[in-house]
Amino acid sequence: MSSLTYDQAQTIVAEALRHGASAGYKPLTVAVLDTGGHLVALGRADGSGFLRPDVAIAKAHGVIGLMMDSRAIAQRASDSPEFFTSVAALAGGKVFSVPGGVFITDADGEVIGAAGASGDASTADEEAVVAGIEAAGLVARTGA
Amino acid sequence: MSSLTYDQAQTIVAEALRHGASAGYKPLTVAVLDTGGHLVALGRADGSGFLRPDVAIAKAHGVIGLMMDSRAIAQRASDSPEFFTSVAALAGGKVFSVPGGVFITDADGEVIGAAGASGDASTADEEAVVAGIEAAGLVARTGA
Amino acid sequence: MSSLTYDQAQTIVAEALRHGASAGYKPLTVAVLDTGGHLVALGRADGSGFLRPDVAIAKAHGVIGLMMDSRAIAQRASDSPEFFTSVAALAGGKVFSVPGGVFITDADGEVIGAAGASGDASTADEEAVVAGIEAAGLVARTGA
Amino acid sequence: MSSLTYDQAQTIVAEALRHGASAGYKPLTVAVLDTGGHLVALGRADGSGFLRPDVAIAKAHGVIGLMMDSRAIAQRASDSPEFFTSVAALAGGKVFSVPGGVFITDADGEVIGAAGASGDASTADEEAVVAGIEAAGLVARTGA
Repeated sequence: MSSLTYDQAQTIVAEALRHGASAGYKPLTVAVLDTGGHLVALGRADGSGFLRPDVAIAKAHGVIGLMMDSRAIAQRASDSPEFFTSVAALAGGKVFSVPGGVFITDADGEVIGAAGASGDASTADEEAVVAGIEAAGLVARTGA
Repeated sequence: MSSLTYDQAQTIVAEALRHGASAGYKPLTVAVLDTGGHLVALGRADGSGFLRPDVAIAKAHGVIGLMMDSRAIAQRASDSPEFFTSVAALAGGKVFSVPGGVFITDADGEVIGAAGASGDASTADEEAVVAGIEAAGLVARTGA
Repeated sequence: MSSLTYDQAQTIVAEALRHGASAGYKPLTVAVLDTGGHLVALGRADGSGFLRPDVAIAKAHGVIGLMMDSRAIAQRASDSPEFFTSVAALAGGKVFSVPGGVFITDADGEVIGAAGASGDASTADEEAVVAGIEAAGLVARTGA
Repeated sequence: MSSLTYDQAQTIVAEALRHGASAGYKPLTVAVLDTGGHLVALGRADGSGFLRPDVAIAKAHGVIGLMMDSRAIAQRASDSPEFFTSVAALAGGKVFSVPGGVFITDADGEVIGAAGASGDASTADEEAVVAGIEAAGLVARTGA
């Protein structure tokens, strides 16, 4: 199994923020986590609110912690809202049901981490993260 | 970038409470936070319940932490209740979707803090905070 | 039993901060709590660190929560460090063994609240709080 | 008052990690916080343990939250261990008494944030952070 490097993580952060800025999105925060759910790199653009790092981390954390992409989490939350409420409480809020948390996989489809973004609409957040992951030469998996 | 002073914060508290009393509102608590979400001044009127400081702080904290006014937070909570559930858990409850948390901006429209009130109906809480901010010579932004 | 009013609490905050500034102390934060340990008023001078509100609140909270003045708490902490460690953990840190948390009593010696300060040396913090309480026409009790 | 930009924060992280690597230090994690104590940028070098982000953040958080450099915190902790115990509990552990948390100031000496590192000996952590801050054209203040 290959593992996510610091250089890859910083490229994802830098390129996701660049994508968000050039697309005219509100200022984003982007976080990259390893398979243990721990931070490797984070960047908060000027003007992005101070709760955004926690939200960006949480989006990636829920995806990798449940090993479910955000569409699958949303489906589960829709089928069973109480399941989602309990998981969110257990995880201290570190799981989200909206887009913006994305699996990072290597060329073989092996999951090597997850990235999350927050700041604009969920689909814009997700699009920026996907752009960052691809700019780092890796493969993004969103469930979309 | 200008920053919120202690004197401005105390004027906001004093004038918001004065406004609430003269309007016949229930006893309010008013909190003023800096851009980092930290208390600069707080006042709890006689008869205002002891949970009111936490609520007043939380209303201001959510607004400044997400860089979204309370109407935008309410819209997002309505579109995606699970988003709101997760953010509230992440923030330890320090985010509200009802009026009463208000941006404080300087003459150039730059955000220099946020104020929150709790004690009466949300719109009354908000009205008192706006009056306090204006009495301090600053500009209130509610999203209304 | 008389109870602490909002006006008295705001006078304590304003006068304690004024005392600290005129004595040349580092920027202080001053908090006033009722007998339930809940905030009535708080002020943080320009330049006072953002952890200071929590420390000022905690100093007053420990005094009123244990109904022991700060010298008695310090004596107990010295006699039994494990007691202090457990109490501090139980209270989430909201008890201190250093000066700066002061009982507020009425003319009959009845406790009506507590005030705390943080920002300079503990004895300076305490001196400012005592000055604020006396300026409000109330009686300070420190155990000194 | 100037404020810390995202670009400055990313330069501090990148250059502090580069300094640590070229000095042969163990893999570091470096965090940069704004004046509100919130993350602006973070990087964890390959091989740096997953608790290192929390430690790096905490070192910077305590310095900026108390507005005391790490030597002053260490002195206070030595004079009054119970003070430190209570502050650490209040701050959820987000304060350290060892080197590695450093003020970031602008050319006028105004504090605009703090940076922290963790991974090697405290003095090595600190040296790397100072190198990063200086590489960003800013001024580091350690109290040493």
